[in-house]
Amino acid sequence: MFDFQINAHCSHTRARVGCFRTPHGSVNTPRFMPVGTLATVKGITATQLADTGAQMVLANTYHLHLQPGEGIVADAGGLHRFMGWDRPLLTDSGGFQIFSLADLNRIDDHGVVFRNPRNGSQIELTPERAIEIQMALGADVAMAFDQCPPYPASESDVEAACKRTHAWLERCSNTHQLTNQALFGIVQGGCFPHLREQSAQIVASFDLPGIAIGGVSVGEPVEDIHRIVRQVSPLLPQDRPRYLMGIGTLREIAIAVASGIDLFDCVLPTRLGRHGTALVAGERWNLRNARFREDHTPLDQSCTCTACRHHSRAYLHHLIRNEELLGLTLLSLHNLTQLIRFTSAISQAIQDDCFSEDFAPWQPDSAAHHTW
Amino acid sequence: MFDFQINAHCSHTRARVGCFRTPHGSVNTPRFMPVGTLATVKGITATQLADTGAQMVLANTYHLHLQPGEGIVADAGGLHRFMGWDRPLLTDSGGFQIFSLADLNRIDDHGVVFRNPRNGSQIELTPERAIEIQMALGADVAMAFDQCPPYPASESDVEAACKRTHAWLERCSNTHQLTNQALFGIVQGGCFPHLREQSAQIVASFDLPGIAIGGVSVGEPVEDIHRIVRQVSPLLPQDRPRYLMGIGTLREIAIAVASGIDLFDCVLPTRLGRHGTALVAGERWNLRNARFREDHTPLDQSCTCTACRHHSRAYLHHLIRNEELLGLTLLSLHNLTQLIRFTSAISQAIQDDCFSEDFAPWQPDSAAHHTW
Repeated sequence: MFDFQINAHCSHTRARVGCFRTPHGSVNTPRFMPVGTLATVKGITATQLADTGAQMVLANTYHLHLQPGEGIVADAGGLHRFMGWDRPLLTDSGGFQIFSLADLNRIDDHGVVFRNPRNGSQIELTPERAIEIQMALGADVAMAFDQCPPYPASESDVEAACKRTHAWLERCSNTHQLTNQALFGIVQGGCFPHLREQSAQIVASFDLPGIAIGGVSVGEPVEDIHRIVRQVSPLLPQDRPRYLMGIGTLREIAIAVASGIDLFDCVLPTRLGRHGTALVAGERWNLRNARFREDHTPLDQSCTCTACRHHSRAYLHHLIRNEELLGLTLLSLHNLTQLIRFTSAISQAIQDDCFSEDFAPWQPDSAAHHTW
Repeated sequence: MFDFQINAHCSHTRARVGCFRTPHGSVNTPRFMPVGTLATVKGITATQLADTGAQMVLANTYHLHLQPGEGIVADAGGLHRFMGWDRPLLTDSGGFQIFSLADLNRIDDHGVVFRNPRNGSQIELTPERAIEIQMALGADVAMAFDQCPPYPASESDVEAACKRTHAWLERCSNTHQLTNQALFGIVQGGCFPHLREQSAQIVASFDLPGIAIGGVSVGEPVEDIHRIVRQVSPLLPQDRPRYLMGIGTLREIAIAVASGIDLFDCVLPTRLGRHGTALVAGERWNLRNARFREDHTPLDQSCTCTACRHHSRAYLHHLIRNEELLGLTLLSLHNLTQLIRFTSAISQAIQDDCFSEDFAPWQPDSAAHHTW
């Protein structure tokens, strides 16, 4: 039911164009995946989401376990039915969220105990439990339960987290029993090259249908992200989709694709949208700014999203200034469309042999301008 | 450019089925009109709005004058272009909002001076100015600038407000110069039948393309609304659209249609939606209620809106419980669809001679059940 086909290679980078088949449809890579933490991409209907070009959408195990609980989602017929999205879905395991958001009570080799922020009760999550929850949610892709160390962390702490992540991956893999759901492993290792290398080798040895690079964008300098991605990506199996978790900035996406990464997710486009910021031609525009007050041109002439086709910068400025819900929805739609379009343009550029790490196809003098 | 045709009469009430032609298309009456105060129906795109069955949409002169200002809307090419809605639009004059929302400084026969809530400056609005602003906004229908007395108010206060409203109507009428915009007059008179009668006669004498009943739903008992509508509506010209301002409850709409009213507006459906309440089969359901937690059936099996076609009560409950923006959007869409559908069903029932004041077509034993 799962299959990853590589249809084109870049002649001068490790970039590739692929197609990841899932039970709910194909995901053309490279591709950005919108985040729908609580089984909803904030403020956006499923129809609008499809219009952004989204193919695979994320949801989160930690959040959905707390509310509404995987039992209710399973009773609804699974996450696709529950959220009204019949295309590919991926659930993050909750590891990252527990270590970054939760009030932790205990971490040991067995698992994690944390406080339910909604009612104060103690919740235990183990690799087995995280996989059981994800099997109940029923996304097309489940992620292994990992320990994501904070930044900065000592070498010994990161080494311990790696060791635990690898032991947990084995338990995740043993627990995961579905044929219509793929389990992806997650490489950790912080900013330590030898730990990253070791983690990549161990995770790769599980022969899973896909592998993610986790533990990036946790506060480290952006150069470290570049370095980690450039080092780790080539160590992963060529013939499986590679997913760089939590990255949604243009430069980092382009560098990662050039290193052979296929999938990306990030809350950035929707979070920026909810704060009145639009991604336009490689820049971030604060629509609250008075310079847009009387600007009756489209936000981005080259964009086909609802905000750009039907509205002006002046109207978006008006909505954002007045804290109108529609402003948040329109900017979120635009930003998602923009990032997905960026990855689609990369795909075209790879096929046309004009992709590069400094990919910026909106620039008129870009060799890849025709892909925008 | 304007024309009101009556296509069917009810055999046993004053209800009628009509078609009001405007430069941006026809409005089939009876019909509920969604409110887009600040040139946006909160949380809803123009495409979604059209899907609710909306034909004419309201915006507000008071709010748009404050922000972004009619100059910017005019520069955008008018309100239709500014908000991306190319169907009929109506602007309320701002009279009601100034008297209910603003910090008033002076009211006299000349006009009103109030404090700009955004920057504290003094703003003067006169009948001439209110019409000039509405001409700049460029909706299909402009409303006369009226004085809406509060409830309760003494007979002499209401009489004075009526007198002023009539004098202002003359000035509005003299100022209004557009052929592609209709000016509607507004009947006042509070809860005093003789003042209502007098106001209806005076406003009718202006021979305008439409007349509204204002000053209702300002705090008076619902029986007073029924009484006023039953008294005033028959006094208005048969061959012009009649608009009952600010009413959006099912029973009041049905009673008003039975008295010959054609148009309605109200913030209720979107406001209820933003508070997690859905209009279903004549009831108001609080989706926050735990009884919906595991209810995987559609909100309203008979409804064709996005919320009902693609989602379950359990999902809507989940969204509302988690204060997800999408929940507000979906419930607003549902509630608008429901009210517009109610007025469409009335229209069908009038034609099929099964309309009545207690119209409730969702009831299986209703003679008009087929219209739902």
